[in-house]
Amino acid sequence: MKEIFFTAGPSQLHKNYAQYYNEALQKNLGSANHRSNTFRDVYKYTYTQLKQLLKLPNDTAIFFTGSASEIWERMIQNLVLNKSHHLVNGSFSKRFYEYAAALGINATKYEVELLKGYNEAALKVEEDVELICTTQNETSTGVKMNPTLLNKIKQINKNALLCSDLVSVAPVSEIDYTQVDSTFFSVQKAFGMPPGLGVWICNNACRQKATILQSNNKIKTAHHTLETFYKNFEKWETPSTPNIIAIYVLGRIAEEFNTYGFEKLKNETAIKKQIIYETINNSNVLKVAVENIDWQSDTMLVFKTEKSSTEIVNELKKSNLIISTGYGAIKESTIRIANFPTTSIEDINKLAFALKQLG
Amino acid sequence: MKEIFFTAGPSQLHKNYAQYYNEALQKNLGSANHRSNTFRDVYKYTYTQLKQLLKLPNDTAIFFTGSASEIWERMIQNLVLNKSHHLVNGSFSKRFYEYAAALGINATKYEVELLKGYNEAALKVEEDVELICTTQNETSTGVKMNPTLLNKIKQINKNALLCSDLVSVAPVSEIDYTQVDSTFFSVQKAFGMPPGLGVWICNNACRQKATILQSNNKIKTAHHTLETFYKNFEKWETPSTPNIIAIYVLGRIAEEFNTYGFEKLKNETAIKKQIIYETINNSNVLKVAVENIDWQSDTMLVFKTEKSSTEIVNELKKSNLIISTGYGAIKESTIRIANFPTTSIEDINKLAFALKQLG
Repeated sequence: MKEIFFTAGPSQLHKNYAQYYNEALQKNLGSANHRSNTFRDVYKYTYTQLKQLLKLPNDTAIFFTGSASEIWERMIQNLVLNKSHHLVNGSFSKRFYEYAAALGINATKYEVELLKGYNEAALKVEEDVELICTTQNETSTGVKMNPTLLNKIKQINKNALLCSDLVSVAPVSEIDYTQVDSTFFSVQKAFGMPPGLGVWICNNACRQKATILQSNNKIKTAHHTLETFYKNFEKWETPSTPNIIAIYVLGRIAEEFNTYGFEKLKNETAIKKQIIYETINNSNVLKVAVENIDWQSDTMLVFKTEKSSTEIVNELKKSNLIISTGYGAIKESTIRIANFPTTSIEDINKLAFALKQLG
Repeated sequence: MKEIFFTAGPSQLHKNYAQYYNEALQKNLGSANHRSNTFRDVYKYTYTQLKQLLKLPNDTAIFFTGSASEIWERMIQNLVLNKSHHLVNGSFSKRFYEYAAALGINATKYEVELLKGYNEAALKVEEDVELICTTQNETSTGVKMNPTLLNKIKQINKNALLCSDLVSVAPVSEIDYTQVDSTFFSVQKAFGMPPGLGVWICNNACRQKATILQSNNKIKTAHHTLETFYKNFEKWETPSTPNIIAIYVLGRIAEEFNTYGFEKLKNETAIKKQIIYETINNSNVLKVAVENIDWQSDTMLVFKTEKSSTEIVNELKKSNLIISTGYGAIKESTIRIANFPTTSIEDINKLAFALKQLG
């Protein structure tokens, strides 16, 4: 049996990944100039497919970077003059906060324990906060943010921009994109592609804020300013030569998801999650790590283990089933199982069977 | 006949590109974690092959970014507190200067006319310059920097770091890497890969400078600091998830170049350049644009045209030979022909034949 990757990302490649990549090679996209009609058509195509898949509002722009972590930095550089606020409950939401602090702005945070989510107390921020940074799916702990809470943040704090890190959940997130100003993700998670592309989604409010900073010479980057991104986006171009082939393949996978149907994708994600949770409920070795059902991520399933997580990972590896250890402080005491659209119900059943064998 | 790309980049893919990419897929590199031994082996392999190919000194570190333009920014952010100096003779060396200026430091320049190179007068910089930025091969005009001049810059200005943009020339550049502190390139030019990876080469002097800035809290980026790059490089890891497959393929192509032999690669480049220059010398439509022989790039051959360059490009396109128009102010009055290792002498002969037909 070939290895199946349930890793936190990079993860299992989409089953048609190689086919779409080959299509791109056949179309000579690897040699295409990023100021040619060939590239413009690719950009427009991928934009259109993503807009449909994620139900993005009409004032949406989509930009491409080297990685999602780059976007943490671009977000702060382009949208914050003095103050950002961060909801922190794990390694990645914390790193977003640390990026902001390192960039020299006044970054504040509301931090909760690992494996916990947020309640209403987390929602109200100080009046002078310019950007509220949230993480929809904390990849290190498998805690998701309730979409209703996210909407409330926007309603309560009308003066601040709101951004949501969708790294390990897009496109199967349930968030309402009309209620956030900016989101972003990388392609090596739920889209099932190799790493090398970050995707940054912005609305007009972001553009307006960036324009104010830019006209006051307050932007601290030269490379990926929102101004340059927008100027190029209007022509379906990019500021520098991007990962053209990855942009094309992302569009193809988004198209396939559109054809398949977002609801079906969501339902299958729920079914697969249920299969794994039922298995864990009957396990003597593993137990649920995120106790509050509302906080249990749909795409990153995290479980506690009394054995070392490395031992569990190695045991499953013998059956060619590749999962991840925990991350950060709970690396050894938890395991992480990605539940991305790229693994089938059949794959998940194989994993459930192997988890049962652990005892 | 299939299209052959002599474009300035993205350009003709390496003939074994698809094979190497497939190898990477077979090895599951698209799903490999960047903190796994699988990735560490890839990083070490590509580093070793590039070090051999470019004859890099032992204190060399190699880092990966999203693009070469990103490196313009990282270079300034990590290596300059107050002042950089730039040799400018075209659109790309100018953009490097503009990046520095936009990042708020005191950026000075020594600028010469388009299609010209530098003489001794350009070499001496002010005492307080921390980083001298040069462009080995100005992609917009096809002017190269004399390697002897580059060495002199270092000898004359011992207090400054020296960096060289090798974007459209690595790996066939003749520069002596022991005489520069930092170089960088992207893979979609002479390495014949699709875009999506920047390669940044630094020596210990860069590290020392960055450490001083970092310990004084003077680094203006959080994402790709040299400190984080080095900390990860010591473990053969990267700060964030990189374009793993591209790193592998880059290593494979470098290995192939090593096996083939750097001198043979250089000789073929010279032969192909000669074929095209001889053709142009007999042309009624095109004429040499860079008049000083010492300044004529080996990898980016630029010629003047009295017709519009777009017309020439379109004419050659009918024979499936794809070249580039000029760039910037001389876009319409010049054409650019890439002479990368990815096109064979046979390909160049086909192009020469078609150029002759133009008149």
